[in-house]
Amino acid sequence: GNIVAPEGGGRVMDQAVVSYFRAPHSYTGEDVVEITLHGSPVVTAEVLELLFEAGVRPASPGEFTYRAFINDRIDLVQAEAVADLVASKSLRAAEQAVRQLEGGLGRQVDEIGLAIRRALTSCELELDFVEEDLEPADGQRKLDLIERALDGTARMLDGYRAARHIREGVKVAVVGPVNVGKSSLFNRLTGEEHAIVHPKPGTTRDVLHESTVIRGVAFEFFDTAGMRRAADEVEDEGVRRAMRAAEEADILLDVRAVDEGPVAAVECGANGNRVCVLNKMDLAPEIDPGGRIPVSAKTGLNLDALKSVLFDRAVGDECPEGSINRERHFRCMKRVQRSLELAKEAAESGHPAEIVAEELHHALDALDELTGRRHRSDLLSDIFRDFCIGK
Amino acid sequence: GNIVAPEGGGRVMDQAVVSYFRAPHSYTGEDVVEITLHGSPVVTAEVLELLFEAGVRPASPGEFTYRAFINDRIDLVQAEAVADLVASKSLRAAEQAVRQLEGGLGRQVDEIGLAIRRALTSCELELDFVEEDLEPADGQRKLDLIERALDGTARMLDGYRAARHIREGVKVAVVGPVNVGKSSLFNRLTGEEHAIVHPKPGTTRDVLHESTVIRGVAFEFFDTAGMRRAADEVEDEGVRRAMRAAEEADILLDVRAVDEGPVAAVECGANGNRVCVLNKMDLAPEIDPGGRIPVSAKTGLNLDALKSVLFDRAVGDECPEGSINRERHFRCMKRVQRSLELAKEAAESGHPAEIVAEELHHALDALDELTGRRHRSDLLSDIFRDFCIGK
Repeated sequence: GNIVAPEGGGRVMDQAVVSYFRAPHSYTGEDVVEITLHGSPVVTAEVLELLFEAGVRPASPGEFTYRAFINDRIDLVQAEAVADLVASKSLRAAEQAVRQLEGGLGRQVDEIGLAIRRALTSCELELDFVEEDLEPADGQRKLDLIERALDGTARMLDGYRAARHIREGVKVAVVGPVNVGKSSLFNRLTGEEHAIVHPKPGTTRDVLHESTVIRGVAFEFFDTAGMRRAADEVEDEGVRRAMRAAEEADILLDVRAVDEGPVAAVECGANGNRVCVLNKMDLAPEIDPGGRIPVSAKTGLNLDALKSVLFDRAVGDECPEGSINRERHFRCMKRVQRSLELAKEAAESGHPAEIVAEELHHALDALDELTGRRHRSDLLSDIFRDFCIGK
Repeated sequence: GNIVAPEGGGRVMDQAVVSYFRAPHSYTGEDVVEITLHGSPVVTAEVLELLFEAGVRPASPGEFTYRAFINDRIDLVQAEAVADLVASKSLRAAEQAVRQLEGGLGRQVDEIGLAIRRALTSCELELDFVEEDLEPADGQRKLDLIERALDGTARMLDGYRAARHIREGVKVAVVGPVNVGKSSLFNRLTGEEHAIVHPKPGTTRDVLHESTVIRGVAFEFFDTAGMRRAADEVEDEGVRRAMRAAEEADILLDVRAVDEGPVAAVECGANGNRVCVLNKMDLAPEIDPGGRIPVSAKTGLNLDALKSVLFDRAVGDECPEGSINRERHFRCMKRVQRSLELAKEAAESGHPAEIVAEELHHALDALDELTGRRHRSDLLSDIFRDFCIGK
């Protein structure tokens, strides 16, 4: 159809495709009209002006998704997934967001909620029996239900770290003494000559950072100044920044080199956030790396193996479906877990059913906060503020 | 619907809105499918990859519009209007493009074409009469038809300059001796402090350019170095660039100042491409501007009047509907005009009808080239090469 100016004798402003999504069959669940113009910024501004005059207003950031949530088209975790999907910097992050967008954490949350509600029914029956001075109800069934809810909660919490790493990307700080080839390794890992490499110790002062994708997950590497008593003030500031980057990192890539003398053996286990490498192995291939991963930034020796180790440390083999992946989810589920544990203790200690029931209600509340069934408006504005306009 | 990965056990890649435009009710006239994703660059790349594997290929620049043209949905002038609309930098340019997109030059071209074809019929009748040795046909009717075609052609050519200025914007070079306040005037006219202003003569060396919109039409002002024997090589190069800018301009804004001594009177008529002003009128309000427009960049005196003069000189009061607005159109219509004039001369001089008819055929050919009914493929690639991809 044509967009016609209200004055100006029927002047056609643009030809347009107009799509009408009739409620409730739209993204928001409300009536939605989409107008597609040819793409001239001048005409687009003119047509917008016309719409504003007709009483239309621009959407706030995330308002479409907010309305979808308010109209029960999606839950809060699905709403968050929309923002995650748009912002996703890696394929795995996008996959996770789509999975979350499709079902939210619905099934997992429903199972936990059902177990808690059944346990609550048990509690109420017990109270009835007590009131009527009858035989006590079956306490074991109640405990079994609480256990089942606890298991489900633990499964959701289990994948949190990996899922959050997939969602946000993994921060790796390259740390170590001066002149062990940290910048060379950084360049090799991020695939380009970002950092200036020089044989003179203390070349790097700023903290450089570059992103790369390893097996579909975004990794951000931080190249830092070498740790030593600084030669001057600029380098001193560099060392301070290096320490800050190390504190904020998910993984420390601890670099030593074969030419700096004997290196103490380390226990570079599968846990913890430190990955230890021994660089410049090309200079002395026969040396014992002492528990470190032997690498050479120069020849590329073992760099793929190193990436695999970084990937396994941050993400691991699998990310169970329905894992929570935000700090907010983590806090809610930790509250669910704590309340369920208190309920279990109370039940095991033979406390009155009222006390068990109260903790179970707390657990349900925290679960409802996760999905947004219960919410505070400031929480909602926190979540939707980070959306882009038009989503 | 869902976009599902072909491998990976039905993994959902994104949720999408898919629109199907059934032929011939689409932009191109062919079957068209549009896929709208959530907007993650990662997912978009992945879905595109999937489509490419399925045999889809990216469109060339302007390919959709090219197909619309090839499938007779639009003529060549309308196709050009699509590119003009997207690129339009002012409201008037957008309006002109939409008008051209709506009807092309169809009605004007049809009227001219009809007159020419009728004149051709006259010619053929005449030949029949000659063959059969009958009375000569009515020569006046043929001449009237050629006149009518010539009138229509002249109307289409008339608006060319203004319409091209509206489409492309108007280039105005600010020229004059050193130290008459050209940069101050440039800053005032373009609304910001772009150029460095300094009392020392010869401050400006680069040619600065800035755009502004006057009454809905884009104007691009060029601030140039003052014309004088240059003090050094850098300034010398500045003067050369100033002269080049002046050559390429649609309008020269010729600036003098009251404080440079007596200024020769000019005939600053309504024609030509030179607009003459006398600057710094605030210093000597009583002075006779001698045919120049008295202005003051400092106080803003008469600057709106100056803009009006620039607008009138470039665009004038009206731009008749159906004006041609591209060099290509101009060349075609000039050929139509020339052939019609030759046909008229031949008819008036009593030349055989074959000769008149041949010129009329040339005119029709040129008209068909304008609308693209006749075209060379290199012309088409010239036109569509400038489109953006996806249009």
